[in-house]
Amino acid sequence: MLEKLKQEVLDANLALVDHNLIKFTWGNVSAIDRESNLIVIKPSGVEYSKLTVDDMVVVNLDGETVEGKMNPSSDTKTHIELYKHFKDIGSIVHTHSKWATIWAQSTRDIPAYGTTHADTFYTEIPCARFLTKNEVDEDYERATGSLIIETFRSRNLDEMATPGILLSGHGPFAWGKDSTQAVYNAVVLEEVAQMALFTEQLNTEVKPLMQTVLDKHYLRKHGKDAYYGQKGNENE
Amino acid sequence: MLEKLKQEVLDANLALVDHNLIKFTWGNVSAIDRESNLIVIKPSGVEYSKLTVDDMVVVNLDGETVEGKMNPSSDTKTHIELYKHFKDIGSIVHTHSKWATIWAQSTRDIPAYGTTHADTFYTEIPCARFLTKNEVDEDYERATGSLIIETFRSRNLDEMATPGILLSGHGPFAWGKDSTQAVYNAVVLEEVAQMALFTEQLNTEVKPLMQTVLDKHYLRKHGKDAYYGQKGNENE
Amino acid sequence: MLEKLKQEVLDANLALVDHNLIKFTWGNVSAIDRESNLIVIKPSGVEYSKLTVDDMVVVNLDGETVEGKMNPSSDTKTHIELYKHFKDIGSIVHTHSKWATIWAQSTRDIPAYGTTHADTFYTEIPCARFLTKNEVDEDYERATGSLIIETFRSRNLDEMATPGILLSGHGPFAWGKDSTQAVYNAVVLEEVAQMALFTEQLNTEVKPLMQTVLDKHYLRKHGKDAYYGQKGNENE
Amino acid sequence: MLEKLKQEVLDANLALVDHNLIKFTWGNVSAIDRESNLIVIKPSGVEYSKLTVDDMVVVNLDGETVEGKMNPSSDTKTHIELYKHFKDIGSIVHTHSKWATIWAQSTRDIPAYGTTHADTFYTEIPCARFLTKNEVDEDYERATGSLIIETFRSRNLDEMATPGILLSGHGPFAWGKDSTQAVYNAVVLEEVAQMALFTEQLNTEVKPLMQTVLDKHYLRKHGKDAYYGQKGNENE
Repeated sequence: MLEKLKQEVLDANLALVDHNLIKFTWGNVSAIDRESNLIVIKPSGVEYSKLTVDDMVVVNLDGETVEGKMNPSSDTKTHIELYKHFKDIGSIVHTHSKWATIWAQSTRDIPAYGTTHADTFYTEIPCARFLTKNEVDEDYERATGSLIIETFRSRNLDEMATPGILLSGHGPFAWGKDSTQAVYNAVVLEEVAQMALFTEQLNTEVKPLMQTVLDKHYLRKHGKDAYYGQKGNENE
Repeated sequence: MLEKLKQEVLDANLALVDHNLIKFTWGNVSAIDRESNLIVIKPSGVEYSKLTVDDMVVVNLDGETVEGKMNPSSDTKTHIELYKHFKDIGSIVHTHSKWATIWAQSTRDIPAYGTTHADTFYTEIPCARFLTKNEVDEDYERATGSLIIETFRSRNLDEMATPGILLSGHGPFAWGKDSTQAVYNAVVLEEVAQMALFTEQLNTEVKPLMQTVLDKHYLRKHGKDAYYGQKGNENE
Repeated sequence: MLEKLKQEVLDANLALVDHNLIKFTWGNVSAIDRESNLIVIKPSGVEYSKLTVDDMVVVNLDGETVEGKMNPSSDTKTHIELYKHFKDIGSIVHTHSKWATIWAQSTRDIPAYGTTHADTFYTEIPCARFLTKNEVDEDYERATGSLIIETFRSRNLDEMATPGILLSGHGPFAWGKDSTQAVYNAVVLEEVAQMALFTEQLNTEVKPLMQTVLDKHYLRKHGKDAYYGQKGNENE
Repeated sequence: MLEKLKQEVLDANLALVDHNLIKFTWGNVSAIDRESNLIVIKPSGVEYSKLTVDDMVVVNLDGETVEGKMNPSSDTKTHIELYKHFKDIGSIVHTHSKWATIWAQSTRDIPAYGTTHADTFYTEIPCARFLTKNEVDEDYERATGSLIIETFRSRNLDEMATPGILLSGHGPFAWGKDSTQAVYNAVVLEEVAQMALFTEQLNTEVKPLMQTVLDKHYLRKHGKDAYYGQKGNENE
């Protein structure tokens, strides 16, 4: 069942390790098959070095395990919420990568200070508020997903142009049309997080990029007038 | 004698190197066999790349070498004090890992700023006071152990829920039920130390996590209601 | 056509990866054959690990592709402007290397705080102003090149003694008489960028090196009285 | 001639690369044979990856090349001054290692904030003043050596208990009884430099270690009452 997608999800999980975004088991990737509405996700708490294709868990949008011997990621309900509301995304990545987590712990949005940011994220990278005590106590992981949707809706952000978010006191989520793009976006998020922190230290009065440059860089890589890269290859 | 435990201690020492917590010979791991009350510990000042199982030293709770040709770690008395008072721990790790040592040198507790911290440490990571001149002069390494106990008792900390400490002007100790867990906790301590430092720089008014989130994250991984990971695998 | 130069440009692109200046496809190297006025440049948006000699694109000074199946780097027009006005350079490197980009994002020149800087850059490393909205909208990449020239001319800088620049909100360009030297200068730029940032943090009143030391270090490696290195090898 | 010492100097140069203290050709190691008063030193400006035993240059205390086809390090005169005045040292290391250089550029001594420092350096690590214009113009490299001696004498420092120094605006020198120890001390210098910088950022009122702890840690590793390590192995 969904063998190709399982392999992609496994590969994406291992790519996170190669990109130094992971310690131990801290992180997970999932991908959805939009035809069957089934999600392939990493099992909970299994070491990356021991992961195999057969360990991948298949769940449906109600969070029920459809195939797999192991427990799915403890963050599965968060992933499900995102797939329900962000209709164009095909894959989600969660990590505790160092610099993105530092921003999340400081409860601050990451401003767009440079074209490295604008090439992939068209706006600031938002940091969602803390969950309330009620939200934590009742259904923590689902509430986390709902909060991400709420944050995007209340700020009028387009999830395809801003493919990631920080959770206060926790860490980043990123996503994309497929797992390759989701991993790519998670790596960019980590890189711009570190650069933004030290940019502010070097110049305490630095301002975000002006809209003209944001437009130029985002749109030379994305959308119908993109001219970066080779045909069909725009986001690499 | 204790061949299995010696192998574990050797492996744990080498794991510290793999996790980039060690330079030269700066660090040591021990483990205790609670039935015989014998401790296996790294020899003093031997390069990690040359360590073998036979180099491991076996000492009793009086600090006498029971087996082994080499001097045990110069910190052996500190380990012994901890094993005497922390009855449930099975292994201890000491390093001079960079970011934990920076906090130790700054003589500050590491606040719990995020879930990466709360997943493993249920409270702040305490920084013990400096030893007095008398304590240093009289029996330095034993006094170091006593000070750790004193710090936990006076703060009402549970050593199993707060499995590590910083020593002012020195560096970190971490521990766990076995050497795998002790190494894991030492790695987490180093990671959260770096993230906490830069979290404060990004937001000078940042507050520690609220208790609800600390509870949620610590308890979804630890204790009878834990639901993270696979059965019997909760702390990985 | 220009097979030797293509190999050099490929090697230089891969050297950037070895020096940790590159993530994904963010960066490019070109070199010019001054006899034919043809430029060899990396194709746009192709992963470094898949690059071959045959992927290199040959363009003329009008930006027309003379040989090659792929689109040349999206920054090609910037390279062309530099080759037209900096008559002695033979190769150009563009990256988003972390610390140089942090300075670029903070829109600050990198002062010469040490001999590591002075051995390669005889002056501060300039940071060019932001492009205006008109410049961005009209012909972004060409305007970027013109701005670099303008910056050097208005500050009376010699491009051979100051072989690099930062672009506000973007990142660094470096160059040299050949691709080996251009890569070398890009690595130095990255290294001195990181060191200068933390130098200022350690001593908020630090001053740039006095001219005597700048002269001593730059001139013991460059020019007719150089005495560093072996004959014919001065810049390594 | 001095084949064993040449091999040691080559190995020490390569060890600097393994310890990440070197970029390109920035650094050099020498060692002296005290019986013949001959010094073996790295050639100037040769890439580490290409160095062979036969490239090592032998010079006498007048700076004349006694054996070797290549130019000796451009810093040779500095090494000679140190060997003339520091009678017990057998080897000298010079690097532009990142964090030590940052302290040198900030023209500040590195205070002893922790036992990692005190285990190897019994005092602060001094930063020598800038050379005057006259000193730079007249005989730069020799004056650099004289300044190091002057700094130790005027501060009453013992070069064996404080085996390294920073040069304002330049970088570190370290030394030891042999090349293994000199490299070791250079690595420690780099590590404590980074930790001291961030220690101050975490606690702006941090004080250096009290003398009791400095004594304890330095003397448990050095001198007749040392008890760290195995016999004959105290400094590892």
